[in-house]
Amino acid sequence: MQLSNTAKATGDSFVRNILALTQKPGVISFAGGLPDPLLFPLTPISSTIKEILDEQSPNIFQYGPTAGYLPLREIIASQYNQKGYNTNAQNILITQGSQQGLDILCRALLNPNDNIVVEAPTYLAALQLFKASGANIYEVSLEEDGPNIDELKSIFKKHNIKFFYTTPTYQNPSGITCSGQKRKKIAQLAKENDVCIIEDNPYGALRYEGSEPYSYGVYWSEGTVVLGTASKIAAPDFRLGWLSAPSFLYEACARLKGAMDLQSSYFFQRVFYRLLENDSLRIHKKNLIRSYKQKRDLMVKEIEENFKGLLEVNIPKGGMFLWAKFTDGTDTMELFEKAVKEHVAYAPGSVFYASKGGENAMRLNFSHASLEKIKEGIKRLKRAHQS
Amino acid sequence: MQLSNTAKATGDSFVRNILALTQKPGVISFAGGLPDPLLFPLTPISSTIKEILDEQSPNIFQYGPTAGYLPLREIIASQYNQKGYNTNAQNILITQGSQQGLDILCRALLNPNDNIVVEAPTYLAALQLFKASGANIYEVSLEEDGPNIDELKSIFKKHNIKFFYTTPTYQNPSGITCSGQKRKKIAQLAKENDVCIIEDNPYGALRYEGSEPYSYGVYWSEGTVVLGTASKIAAPDFRLGWLSAPSFLYEACARLKGAMDLQSSYFFQRVFYRLLENDSLRIHKKNLIRSYKQKRDLMVKEIEENFKGLLEVNIPKGGMFLWAKFTDGTDTMELFEKAVKEHVAYAPGSVFYASKGGENAMRLNFSHASLEKIKEGIKRLKRAHQS
Repeated sequence: MQLSNTAKATGDSFVRNILALTQKPGVISFAGGLPDPLLFPLTPISSTIKEILDEQSPNIFQYGPTAGYLPLREIIASQYNQKGYNTNAQNILITQGSQQGLDILCRALLNPNDNIVVEAPTYLAALQLFKASGANIYEVSLEEDGPNIDELKSIFKKHNIKFFYTTPTYQNPSGITCSGQKRKKIAQLAKENDVCIIEDNPYGALRYEGSEPYSYGVYWSEGTVVLGTASKIAAPDFRLGWLSAPSFLYEACARLKGAMDLQSSYFFQRVFYRLLENDSLRIHKKNLIRSYKQKRDLMVKEIEENFKGLLEVNIPKGGMFLWAKFTDGTDTMELFEKAVKEHVAYAPGSVFYASKGGENAMRLNFSHASLEKIKEGIKRLKRAHQS
Repeated sequence: MQLSNTAKATGDSFVRNILALTQKPGVISFAGGLPDPLLFPLTPISSTIKEILDEQSPNIFQYGPTAGYLPLREIIASQYNQKGYNTNAQNILITQGSQQGLDILCRALLNPNDNIVVEAPTYLAALQLFKASGANIYEVSLEEDGPNIDELKSIFKKHNIKFFYTTPTYQNPSGITCSGQKRKKIAQLAKENDVCIIEDNPYGALRYEGSEPYSYGVYWSEGTVVLGTASKIAAPDFRLGWLSAPSFLYEACARLKGAMDLQSSYFFQRVFYRLLENDSLRIHKKNLIRSYKQKRDLMVKEIEENFKGLLEVNIPKGGMFLWAKFTDGTDTMELFEKAVKEHVAYAPGSVFYASKGGENAMRLNFSHASLEKIKEGIKRLKRAHQS
């Protein structure tokens, strides 16, 4: 009995190993992308759940339509509309986190050997899916204000590209935010070349400075798919994400979702809807932003004090990650084992590249650990680097 | 922008349309596979959820490992062990309903143009997945005691078969249960031909008569994957299923699950685990069986009285469906539109076949409607048939 080519191409996920690491006692992990559980809005979640249960509607645990809970889809669409991106509930599909949204899009759009473009570096678990789908992956390098336009232009011209996958806001892992000007140009370029834009935006709500530029959907709604998630502003275990897709693609996505797992749980869709609807996540979001910003600033400071220029940090305006590069040629994959021996973990830069790159870089998550652990963890990292 | 071949091959699901139909007021639907929501164990579910919330463990809403909640995987494995099927927690993967289990298996095992065998008729949403995967689908016909062995032997010999997908207990849609003797022979045949057996068992707990034969896993654990679900004994909206796979396949499945949606929600895994662990589903299951058996018997009686031999019914020993055939040549796909006009729905037999068949048959769900609606619905069906 033989495994499929897809199974063989789905390498063991570094993310899975990261998550396994975070379960080990004593390890300070900056490796994952976990929110701080002490900041979960447990009180409103808990009271909303109890409210729903006490209404004793038997149908709350019944099967429901694939597309998802309509009031939730409506409120998501209206939030996009408020930000200038024109979509509506009939174009919103509820998914198992935005990860499933990505999977659905791969299946809806890609044949083996189709061409796609990703940012270098890019989100690891997206890369894993793209590799499993058998696509040819082209990379565009990131500048301070987003993807390099000339490179993108040349790739779009040379190859028949199906989609460009991008995280324009507080990118994972680089922390880079693509400027509004660049977004407009890239949307134009994509339109000219008939390339679909997949905009992943898990971190937009975690903004510490500045303003968020418009979504690609504002510039080109007919060719843009926007992915969103409840994992960063409510809780990951809701397993709740969504995609907003133009109609030609939406129907295919909904059919695929139905074949894949029939539907997502309506229970947490109802909970999340009520949390949005009664605005009880607003105060929570303020706390989250205050706390994560403080953690970010502390981690930057600790790195500067401990590494004195040996580890250069890119300070993001939002999100959960610092992207740091050794200036002394340290190979972060080699350093990783030493770090684990010192009971500290990070994500080596090279895992975020489809081809080569990031050998001296690392991604450090600052949202999960406490302030004390951030201090201690950076000290451990220094010891690992010196050993 | 073009859709993928997979998207094009994923036809619109009759199941999705069925579910949409059941939402329309006034329609008595025997078409879906819905449990009776009035029988959901709301009291133990509700008190278990509140118990978990009141423990105020912040980590309950955090990300968790892909494979699932270990105590739940342990209790599932031990239940299999008690029934003679030797597996363990390390071989149990938690999925989004058993539908996702099937999807994972397709992706783990199938390349385009691989050969598989299904029963004729078989589970509709499985067919949809198999078609989307690009597999060549061979069919084995069902006899009263299970698949026709000679046909299976000949297909296994002629073609290089990847897997045989079967629902041996209270099959959907036929209601047929494969005898223990046949299971033993088929397991032997599959082993000789290196064909993986995928045993789907959503209905085993809903047993109204007789005893359940051993799982294929008892006869050949190294080549059998068993799929299970919480949807029929607890509630569909838990979106909780699992697969038990031999190790060579398990690792690939877990990697794929991680790439597809990272993990399933731990919240309902915890709830379901506690319900199993404190045995509070036992009384619920008794109620369920008593009520569904009563509904089955009533539906059989109403058909006999209304159709007087024109509609022959296969009485299943468990599960949720009657399989009925018109003896007067009525085409159930043509009848369907008339039935909907009379505000009654069923699933036409032909949708359960990969190729042709079932033109005079229909699947009638008896678990969802009340006794009154079963009476009324069969009367409407008679009117549709006469019109």
